[in-house]
Amino acid sequence: MAPETQAGPGGTAAALPLPPMTWDAWGDPALAKPLSDDIKGLLAAALGVSPADGTRPTADEVVLRPSALGPEDVAALAAVVGPEHVSTADADRLPRSGGKSTPDLLRRRSRDPQDAPDAVVLPGSEEEIAALLALCAERRIAVVPFGGGTSVVGGLDPLRGPLTAVLSLDLRRFDRLEHLDAVSGEAVLGAGVTGPRAEELLSAHGFELGHYPQSFRFATVGGFAATRSSGQDSAGYGRFDEMVRGLRVVTPAGTLDLGRAPASAAGPDLRELFLGSEGVFGVITAVRLRVHPVPAVKIHEAWSFPDFATGATALREVEQQGTGPTVIRLSDESETMINLAMTEKIGGEQVTGGCLAVTVFEGTEEQAEARHERTRAVLLAAGGTPLGAEPARAWEHGRFNAPYLRDALLDAGALCETLETATDWANLGRLKSAATEALQGALTASGTASLVLCHISHVYPTGASLYFTVVAAQQGEPLAQWAQVKRAVSDAIMANGGTITHHHAVGADHRPWMGAEVGEVGVRILRAVKDALDPAGILNPGKLIP
Amino acid sequence: MAPETQAGPGGTAAALPLPPMTWDAWGDPALAKPLSDDIKGLLAAALGVSPADGTRPTADEVVLRPSALGPEDVAALAAVVGPEHVSTADADRLPRSGGKSTPDLLRRRSRDPQDAPDAVVLPGSEEEIAALLALCAERRIAVVPFGGGTSVVGGLDPLRGPLTAVLSLDLRRFDRLEHLDAVSGEAVLGAGVTGPRAEELLSAHGFELGHYPQSFRFATVGGFAATRSSGQDSAGYGRFDEMVRGLRVVTPAGTLDLGRAPASAAGPDLRELFLGSEGVFGVITAVRLRVHPVPAVKIHEAWSFPDFATGATALREVEQQGTGPTVIRLSDESETMINLAMTEKIGGEQVTGGCLAVTVFEGTEEQAEARHERTRAVLLAAGGTPLGAEPARAWEHGRFNAPYLRDALLDAGALCETLETATDWANLGRLKSAATEALQGALTASGTASLVLCHISHVYPTGASLYFTVVAAQQGEPLAQWAQVKRAVSDAIMANGGTITHHHAVGADHRPWMGAEVGEVGVRILRAVKDALDPAGILNPGKLIP
Repeated sequence: MAPETQAGPGGTAAALPLPPMTWDAWGDPALAKPLSDDIKGLLAAALGVSPADGTRPTADEVVLRPSALGPEDVAALAAVVGPEHVSTADADRLPRSGGKSTPDLLRRRSRDPQDAPDAVVLPGSEEEIAALLALCAERRIAVVPFGGGTSVVGGLDPLRGPLTAVLSLDLRRFDRLEHLDAVSGEAVLGAGVTGPRAEELLSAHGFELGHYPQSFRFATVGGFAATRSSGQDSAGYGRFDEMVRGLRVVTPAGTLDLGRAPASAAGPDLRELFLGSEGVFGVITAVRLRVHPVPAVKIHEAWSFPDFATGATALREVEQQGTGPTVIRLSDESETMINLAMTEKIGGEQVTGGCLAVTVFEGTEEQAEARHERTRAVLLAAGGTPLGAEPARAWEHGRFNAPYLRDALLDAGALCETLETATDWANLGRLKSAATEALQGALTASGTASLVLCHISHVYPTGASLYFTVVAAQQGEPLAQWAQVKRAVSDAIMANGGTITHHHAVGADHRPWMGAEVGEVGVRILRAVKDALDPAGILNPGKLIP
Repeated sequence: MAPETQAGPGGTAAALPLPPMTWDAWGDPALAKPLSDDIKGLLAAALGVSPADGTRPTADEVVLRPSALGPEDVAALAAVVGPEHVSTADADRLPRSGGKSTPDLLRRRSRDPQDAPDAVVLPGSEEEIAALLALCAERRIAVVPFGGGTSVVGGLDPLRGPLTAVLSLDLRRFDRLEHLDAVSGEAVLGAGVTGPRAEELLSAHGFELGHYPQSFRFATVGGFAATRSSGQDSAGYGRFDEMVRGLRVVTPAGTLDLGRAPASAAGPDLRELFLGSEGVFGVITAVRLRVHPVPAVKIHEAWSFPDFATGATALREVEQQGTGPTVIRLSDESETMINLAMTEKIGGEQVTGGCLAVTVFEGTEEQAEARHERTRAVLLAAGGTPLGAEPARAWEHGRFNAPYLRDALLDAGALCETLETATDWANLGRLKSAATEALQGALTASGTASLVLCHISHVYPTGASLYFTVVAAQQGEPLAQWAQVKRAVSDAIMANGGTITHHHAVGADHRPWMGAEVGEVGVRILRAVKDALDPAGILNPGKLIP
C-alpha cells in the first residue's frame, strides 16, 4: 500500500496508534474534573476570574499548518519503517504537536493555524532509528523524539530550526521488558514503556521501579531518562537518574551502550550526558534500571507543622539522619489551606491550618515499621503534630490528578501553572520568598491578584526542591501574560541560587536560562558534544542548548 | 631573585615544599615494614622468590633527563606564579615524576636516566592557573596536575605527547576550607587539601567527610574528584563522586563553577564530566562536598562465611535491604588465609579458614546499634558466623598499610600489584574466576607460581567491586613481565563484563581499554569535549582518552 493512500499529506484520518494523552488537555478526558460553582464563585471573588469567552475548538476544527513533506519524502520514510508506521495525517500530527504546559494548552485552544510535526514515524528497531537519522540528516529534516507527550517545558515543540521540516519520532514500539536480572535487581526496559506498563511488566516478576512522577500514567521510561525525571517516592527510591544503570542511545554518529558496571572510575560518567539530554544528542531506546521487590507493606502518616520553616527543618532532619521514608513532602501554609478548602473532608482529623506534611513508608513489615518509627521520632522532636493516616492516604489517592484541575481552571478563565526549583537547605527560605514575590509581582503588574502555593516534594541531604503552583485570572492575551510572569520568576530563581528546573527539564521554555545555569564554558561543552554526535543539527533543535 | 639562581635547570636543591610521599616507595619511610625471615622463606618456598640483586639508588644517585625548559621559559613561569613557586631542580622534579604503581616503583629503582617533568609550579590562585594554561598553550608545554602523587595507573606520567616539555602543576597551595554550611551539610575544600587535613579542618566544626581510600593519608580532594575515588566507608557515605555537590574547574577555555543545586533537571550533569576527568579537561581547584556530623559511636564486628559465594550473597542481601553498614567487605578464601598467616594473632577468636568479612557501623549510638542489629540479622540468616569485634578492629587499624607491604615484597624480589573492577551481582563469580585465571595463567607463562587474593570492598544494590592482590616472583625484566600480566587480566575483565577500573582510574595504564569501556562513540564524545576545552592539547596528554 502506498503511504499516501494510507495517510497522505493533509489527510485527516489517524493511521497510527495515538499517544496516551488527549490532544487538548491533560491525560484521559474521562478523568476531567469540572469545577464546582462554589469554587468558581471563590475564584471570581478572590482573583477576579471571569469565564473565558468562546468554546474550545474540537480536533476537527483545528487548522494545522500543512505538512512540508512531499510524497517522495514520505515514501523514503516508509522505506525505512514500513508504510504502516508513517503518517502525515492531521489526526496523527495534532496529538504530537506539543506537550502539556499551560502555554501548550492555551495554544491548543486557538482557532488560528497551529504548528505541528510534518510527519509522524514509529520505528521498530535501533537500526530503523539509525536509518531515519541518516535520512533526516540528508534531507534536512528535524527530529523530535516523542514518548508519552507529557513535557511541560516545550520539549516537544515542533521546531524546525534552520531545517526544512520536522518529524515526530514516536518510540511507542520500544515497549518491551527486554531483560530482568532478579539477582542483581536490574531490568532493561524499552524507551517507549509507560509508567504503568513498566510496573505491570515488573510486578509479574515480583519487582517494581517505584518511579511515580505526576506524569506517571502517560510518560515513558525513555522520557524519564531524557528529562531527569524525579518521582514522588524519590526519598525512598531516588530520582530516575539514580535508578539508571545503563542506557542505549542511537545518535547520528553511531550507537552507544553505556554503563558497564554499577560503579566505575573509568573516566567521566557518560550516562550523565544522556540523562537530561532531551533528545538533542541522540534517541534513547532502552534503559537498564535498578528495581526492587514490590513492597509488602505501606504505612501512611500525615503531620501538621506550625509553619513552613519548622516543617522544612523537620524534613531536613529526617533526610540528614537517613530515617528512610519512601515519601516525604510538606505543603506551605497557602497550599495547606487551599487543599483543605478544595477537599470536602480529610478524615475528620484536626487539620487546623499550619502546614501539612505527608509521609509514606514501604518495605517489608519490619522495614516499613522501623522506618516509620525512626521518622516519627524525628518529626515529633522537630515540632510536628501527627494527623493519622487518612490525609496521607487522601494525598496518595489523588497524587496524579492535579493537572486535571489545571484543565478545569483554564476552562473557567483562570491562569494556572506550576514550576519548580531546588537549592540548599540554608537557602530554601530565601529562594521561596524571592520566587513567590516575583510571581505575585508580575501577576499584579498584569492586572490580577494571584494565589501562590508551594511544597517541598523531594529532599536531599544538602537541600530540597520547591514546587510552586500559581493561580490567577487570565488577563489580555494569556500566553503573553504568562510569558512575562515566567520570565520574572525564572530570573528571580537564578538570582537567588536556585536551579532553573528540578525535575521538569529545560525544553524550549527554560533554554534562555541555561547559560546562567551552567555558564558559558558549560554551554560550550554541550555544543561540542552536540556537534560531535549530530553534526547536521537534526535532533530536537531549539531545545536545551542555548 | 632570578628564578635560575633559586632553582636553575639541572639544579638539584629542592626549592619547593615536597609532596607528601617519599619518592621511591609508598608514603612515609618511617612506616616501612620489612618482611620477617619467616615470610621471606615462605615466599621462596611457595613462589620461588629470590632476593632482588643490587641496591636501590638513592635520590642523589638517580639520573633525571635534563629539563627541556630554558631560563626564558622559567622566567615566564615565574612571572605568573612568583619565582619562589617554580623550580627545575631535580629534587623537586623527581618526587613528581610519577605515581605509585608497581611499574612506577620498579622504574624508580632503575639507574638508567629517568623521565621527569621539566619544571614544577605551585600556583596560588585560579587566575594564576588560567595564566599558566595560556602560557603553556602558547609555548607548547604539557601540564600534569599533581595532588598527593598517589596514582597507581600512570596518571602522573610526565608525558609530553607532541609538545616540547611538560610541567607538574602542584595544587598544594589550594589548601583551605573555603566555606562550611553547617545547615545544609556542605563544605567547599581546596583541591590540594589532603585526606587527613580535610578531616582536621572539618572536625573543628563537628563534621567529617568519611572518605577513606587506601591513599587517604596522602591523596587530595582534587585527586579524589579527578579520579572518581571510592573509600572504604563507601557503603555508609558513598563514593567520592556521590559526595560532590559542586566543582570549580579552570580550563584553557575558561573557568567552570558547576552544581547550582542538590539535584537538577537542567540538562546533562556536567559535574559528571569532570569527575573522573584526570586533568585532561581542566584543573579542579575546589570541590563542594556533602559532609556529615562526626559519628558519636563506632561498632565493629567480623564474620566468617564458609565460602566466597555464600559471603557475597550475604553482602548482597545487606546492600539490597539497605541495612546501613558504614563498612562492609569480604575477603575470599585465599586472602583470608594469607591475612591470617601474616597476622600473629587475631584476638583469639575461632577464625578457621573460610572467608572473613568485616563490618563497621557509625552514627549516633541509636543509629549505629540499629544498623548493627539489622545487618547482623541478615548476615546470620545468610550463613555467617560472628567473630566478635577484634578482627574488624585489626582490619581498621591496618587499613591504610597494605602498600607498605608491597614495598617490602618488591624489596624481597617479589612482584606484587593490585587491580580492581566491578560488575553486577549475577556476574560476580564469573568475573572473579576469569580475572583470577588470567592472572595465574599469565604469571605461569612468565615462569612463576602466583598467589591471587581477592576481596569485595564496595557494594551497590546491583553489584559490587572486586579487588585483586597478586604476588609472584619477579622473572626476567619485571616491568615487561607485569605489562604482559596486566594486558591479559585487563582483556579478561573486559571480555567478562567488568569495568576496567572501579576506583583506581584510567591514567596511561588503562587507556588502551577505554575504547572497549565506553565504545567508539563514547571516545568521540571525550575527544570532542577535550577539543572544545583544551584545543592546544596541553592537559595531561596520553592519559584517559585513547
